[in-house]
Amino acid sequence: MHLTKEDLINMERIERLNLVNCLGGAKPANLIGTISNEGKTNLSIFNSVVHLGSNPALMGFIVRPPKEVRRHTYENVRQNGSFTINMVHPEFVRQAHYTSAKFEAEESEFEACGLTEEYVEGFSAPFVKESKLKIGLQYLSEIPILINGTMLIIGQVEHVILPEEVLFEDNQIDLEKLEAVGIGGLNTYYNLEKIGYYPYARKEDFRSSEKDQ
Amino acid sequence: MHLTKEDLINMERIERLNLVNCLGGAKPANLIGTISNEGKTNLSIFNSVVHLGSNPALMGFIVRPPKEVRRHTYENVRQNGSFTINMVHPEFVRQAHYTSAKFEAEESEFEACGLTEEYVEGFSAPFVKESKLKIGLQYLSEIPILINGTMLIIGQVEHVILPEEVLFEDNQIDLEKLEAVGIGGLNTYYNLEKIGYYPYARKEDFRSSEKDQ
Repeated sequence: MHLTKEDLINMERIERLNLVNCLGGAKPANLIGTISNEGKTNLSIFNSVVHLGSNPALMGFIVRPPKEVRRHTYENVRQNGSFTINMVHPEFVRQAHYTSAKFEAEESEFEACGLTEEYVEGFSAPFVKESKLKIGLQYLSEIPILINGTMLIIGQVEHVILPEEVLFEDNQIDLEKLEAVGIGGLNTYYNLEKIGYYPYARKEDFRSSEKDQ
Repeated sequence: MHLTKEDLINMERIERLNLVNCLGGAKPANLIGTISNEGKTNLSIFNSVVHLGSNPALMGFIVRPPKEVRRHTYENVRQNGSFTINMVHPEFVRQAHYTSAKFEAEESEFEACGLTEEYVEGFSAPFVKESKLKIGLQYLSEIPILINGTMLIIGQVEHVILPEEVLFEDNQIDLEKLEAVGIGGLNTYYNLEKIGYYPYARKEDFRSSEKDQ
């Protein structure tokens, strides 16, 4: 099946939205926790968390244009300067998915979706207690990406909370053992099954062992 | 285990690199194919492909600072204006991983890593024949993200080639059926196993069926 740019333009809106959102493959499923200056918490699922640097440790996520979605997460981050990224696990995929419903600013998705707020002393944004990998970040900057208002929000990692037993060789995280979940498109969730681990790639290593494949 | 910003700063370099690269969760494993004006092809694995919009269909990927890596992919995209994003599958994870080795500009990773170039008429960048989901994009813009030269490269989708049987309900892609692969950190590869599919989230739906969980 070969679709061109014109086929995409002429596609029915929901079909195009689904297809194009699936194209890159599975994205990580993360819940982003924030709090407003009035103390109202917000929790929202994102599939756009990216790694931006390890020293300093920088991560980002993409927020959509204001005309498409209300942006409580963005508003809270700008008010407050802090946010949390929390891994989604199979036990609460459904609750995590429903944080994307249109709740009012006064409603907290934590309560509405049955997830529990947890706090770290000296850090204001709420973590998700049910999550085994929790990251606390300080807002650093925002980069406009598209003229329609899509932006990349960048934060520096201040706290990492995780079970030590998921670490292997030189601090890598075993995402299968952690029971991390991935998202395909906007609606489909996946478990991860580890299939291979390769060292830092040197071309000599590949060539010398080509026959062992 | 609770690590603070200071713990990350004081961590051994490779341990920090591994840990921080794993933090977000599993990223999609994609091979990006390009060609120089001299006709030399390049293929490189990326874990930073992001969705940016569906109408027009826009995707991006992050290139690291020029001091950290040679950027044949970036140079080719700027010379030529086109690039391809090709899904990695379990059968060629090892070949895909070794595209990250330091090959010279004159060496094509296609040949060196045992993958096959494939072309679409009227489109210059090479696709990966072994990949079941192939996307051809036209360069649109680049956004500087960090002062160190990290950039987001944005392209518009011109071609989508995929097996029709992986599509389900309203053009979603079943990534398990497609045998799409995810990456954790820089070195670990994962298969995807579908665990749940939820419709567009409306808060009424969640509340009315809470007892059915």
